[in-house]
Amino acid sequence: MCDTAGQVIRCRAAVAWEAGKPLVVEEVEVAPPQANEVRLKILFTSLCHTDVYFWEAKGQNPLFPRIYGHEAGGVVESVGEGVTDLKAGDHVLPVFMGECKDCAHCKSEESNMCDLLRINTDRGVMLGDGKSRFSIKGKPIYHFVGTSTFSEYTVVHVGCVAKINPSAPLDKVCLLSCGISTGLGATLNVAKPKRGSTVAVFGLGAVGLAAAEGARLSGASRIIGVDLNSSKFEEAKKFGVTEFVNPKEHKKPVQEVIAELTNGGVDRSIECTGSVEAMISAFECVHDGWGVAVLVGVPHKEAVFKTHPVNFLTERTLKGTFYGNYKPRTDIPSVVEKYMNKELELEKFITHEVPFSEINKAFEYMLKGEGLRCLIHMEE
Amino acid sequence: MCDTAGQVIRCRAAVAWEAGKPLVVEEVEVAPPQANEVRLKILFTSLCHTDVYFWEAKGQNPLFPRIYGHEAGGVVESVGEGVTDLKAGDHVLPVFMGECKDCAHCKSEESNMCDLLRINTDRGVMLGDGKSRFSIKGKPIYHFVGTSTFSEYTVVHVGCVAKINPSAPLDKVCLLSCGISTGLGATLNVAKPKRGSTVAVFGLGAVGLAAAEGARLSGASRIIGVDLNSSKFEEAKKFGVTEFVNPKEHKKPVQEVIAELTNGGVDRSIECTGSVEAMISAFECVHDGWGVAVLVGVPHKEAVFKTHPVNFLTERTLKGTFYGNYKPRTDIPSVVEKYMNKELELEKFITHEVPFSEINKAFEYMLKGEGLRCLIHMEE
Repeated sequence: MCDTAGQVIRCRAAVAWEAGKPLVVEEVEVAPPQANEVRLKILFTSLCHTDVYFWEAKGQNPLFPRIYGHEAGGVVESVGEGVTDLKAGDHVLPVFMGECKDCAHCKSEESNMCDLLRINTDRGVMLGDGKSRFSIKGKPIYHFVGTSTFSEYTVVHVGCVAKINPSAPLDKVCLLSCGISTGLGATLNVAKPKRGSTVAVFGLGAVGLAAAEGARLSGASRIIGVDLNSSKFEEAKKFGVTEFVNPKEHKKPVQEVIAELTNGGVDRSIECTGSVEAMISAFECVHDGWGVAVLVGVPHKEAVFKTHPVNFLTERTLKGTFYGNYKPRTDIPSVVEKYMNKELELEKFITHEVPFSEINKAFEYMLKGEGLRCLIHMEE
Repeated sequence: MCDTAGQVIRCRAAVAWEAGKPLVVEEVEVAPPQANEVRLKILFTSLCHTDVYFWEAKGQNPLFPRIYGHEAGGVVESVGEGVTDLKAGDHVLPVFMGECKDCAHCKSEESNMCDLLRINTDRGVMLGDGKSRFSIKGKPIYHFVGTSTFSEYTVVHVGCVAKINPSAPLDKVCLLSCGISTGLGATLNVAKPKRGSTVAVFGLGAVGLAAAEGARLSGASRIIGVDLNSSKFEEAKKFGVTEFVNPKEHKKPVQEVIAELTNGGVDRSIECTGSVEAMISAFECVHDGWGVAVLVGVPHKEAVFKTHPVNFLTERTLKGTFYGNYKPRTDIPSVVEKYMNKELELEKFITHEVPFSEINKAFEYMLKGEGLRCLIHMEE
């Protein structure tokens, strides 16, 4: 038990005061964890599109001031009442979607969409008492997706914490708490390409490249990257992408281009852009008889997926996934092991690194579409 | 070798001379089988919607005169050159979609959509030489989907013949050559409900009831039948249907009605109507996290399947199937065995029987929506 347990901790956090305005690193108070909660010392965090999307607050309910951040690694500082499977000092990844281990989803082998701890972007408070654990001079600051990792300390529900191998470097495996697991799991757990198969990946950002990495690990013989930005191909080769198609460079629909390249279609496709047009192409480019398309990218609220039903009847499958179908507490420790035994490569996703005091640079890189992941070091 | 081998056989066939006009039973000449073909003596056949659809020739290319029929059982009369795995006297089911055993689909464990012998409703001749084996006084009569079983003798490609247990009663197992296998396989091979799960079946015709029978064999705890005709529920109970929903009796969309009945959605659904609205409902009524919807019914050419992509992202799966994903030569013998060991019940599908001379009565029953299958006895 460390000596801060049970005490309010004062530490630095990057506070978003207004939509789209630079974060301000300032001192916040972090209350002790309540029942079924854990307080974490965050050591590394990184920026994901979802943080930026809700920080921009275009369309969704704005909730400010708020502490963003959900891709991170850290150490348990203290635990609340009733927490038995975590203790101070444990190395952990906080995860934006939890695993209560008690609901129908957690008990199902097929789902990871926990009823209790499913992602909720509208809630800015803790589930247990409806209150925030963050404050500045007594004024509450909202949480984000139950993680709020842009803070040196944060409080999360115990169901949102994956306990991992303490020898795993947190400055690498922190990436597994969101985007990389999402793409990797979409391939390994949902698309499940066989050795030697052909895979198309739509969108060559971090999630799409993680999906490609999954195809590489699966032994796919051809990995076709699809992106509207041709400059991404060079980088994508590091992730196993063997061919590149830019839909803007073709007159016919990209699904037809891919079908011609692959004698009727790819065996598997993974959509990581969120564009509904890309979703339709990703579905229609899989081979009849056995093709499986997996949707990962989050669409606009008004988006409508449309296709001729015969595309299904000719034995194609379309599925969606959330966080790569990984159950955070049950499955993520084994993904960390894939990195530890050098199967999975994480270094290549980290294209930028900044100290916490320069967190706004990470936003700038992402808004410019520069690089994949910017690692933020909490200790400077 | 029987004494008709190599000879033209004169026999009775029910010829469709014009779209929508009663068939005429008359004497036809049936040429001997050529290379990779088999001539069958048909003993029992039954009428399926697909026969009626193409006989009505509304919308498709009309091809007349033609001999319809594709659900049947019979005995091999003689075989053409190169046929080694069938011989005169073998008990067989002709199947409208074949299995060449050589193409990528036949070699795939996941597909039954043989490249060579995939259903082709526009072709009225044999694949080998582009000619018909049927004629009347020398004038050719077109084939239908490679089977043309409304004839005492017919010639089919060897890849379209399933050799079955000779002790199986052909007047029952003939139903497995189309509709019943289609529905049964959609459940057993594609939806794969677990014991104790909930299953919705859209459309309670023969195919839908075969899908329900599959759910019953799988040990589903609840089988919800959906049909616009409430009078079908009573009959459906024989096939394991435990509950009934008529969309016309509810103000809200049927997917919402089903979600309320099942605490969020069924585990599996099977769509057997071909209506695109029913397809959308069948997809949207499965539970998030693990629900799988399977499309079986054939839609209109202009139909568009539409849904919000988030319905996929919340981990629902949509797949289509053709002939229940059964490979006819490899798999159908084992479906016959399911009947032989009393697992699968076929008698309850046969609601009418007529002698061949009264085949037009079978059309009348189907056009009136009366009963499930009308068995046609070729020998009177």
